[in-house]
Amino acid sequence: MSNASPVDILLVEDDPNDAELAVRAFEKYKLANRIVRAGDGEEALDYLFARGKHVGRDPSARPRLVLLDLKLPKVDGLDVLKAIRSDGRTRLIPVVILTTSKEESDVVRGYELGANSYIVKPVDFDKFIDVVKELGFYWLLLNEQP
Amino acid sequence: MSNASPVDILLVEDDPNDAELAVRAFEKYKLANRIVRAGDGEEALDYLFARGKHVGRDPSARPRLVLLDLKLPKVDGLDVLKAIRSDGRTRLIPVVILTTSKEESDVVRGYELGANSYIVKPVDFDKFIDVVKELGFYWLLLNEQP
Repeated sequence: MSNASPVDILLVEDDPNDAELAVRAFEKYKLANRIVRAGDGEEALDYLFARGKHVGRDPSARPRLVLLDLKLPKVDGLDVLKAIRSDGRTRLIPVVILTTSKEESDVVRGYELGANSYIVKPVDFDKFIDVVKELGFYWLLLNEQP
Repeated sequence: MSNASPVDILLVEDDPNDAELAVRAFEKYKLANRIVRAGDGEEALDYLFARGKHVGRDPSARPRLVLLDLKLPKVDGLDVLKAIRSDGRTRLIPVVILTTSKEESDVVRGYELGANSYIVKPVDFDKFIDVVKELGFYWLLLNEQP
């Protein structure tokens, strides 16, 4: 698949099972053609800012949505969010936090740092698929992107 | 209905037809029990900050969602958004812009001022109902509020 085709979703998720489930849901419901996965926060930022192994990528080709887990290796999810909102090239990308954390402090901090939405991962397999479908539909088909 | 019951949605909409359609959709799909409508931007701010005819209301009782039209009498929608994001009592309330404007400058400015999402009103009656249902479901049932 060509690097020039637009990326629909940057999926920042360290759990390979959750990542695979999410990708399958997006494909099953034909919501996203091209999903890039970053397994930790550093890789997410390398992708967004065309650094590290993503050097040479055109950083102005922004994903249409960032799905962001919070507890991530190397760079924490909230720090990834902070970096996204601090840079003119990425600050308007819709960011949806998708995490197991229901802690009020994470929710508040997420919104304070500029997350568009905060979704708690359902534990149940089928419900997880449903939630991914709903949020994909909302952000890729209903919402107007800048 | 008691003023003490929590308000689900503050609907800021000057067009009475659009407002009625939206309220009907929320009721039909049992997404919102209590909807407050403001017909212009000033009334929206009066409600949120317990001023004017809403003086005496407890301003810490925040609506769970603000649905905001852009072209509004008295105070423009983008100025309402700016005021919401500038005040500690209201700055974390999810705000979804629901407007006929597809102008890129409105979309960009909306996100820059901190809108969580931007939805273009469909012209078609049935599609309008569908969109209201989808966004109500997403923001009131799926999304985690601060």
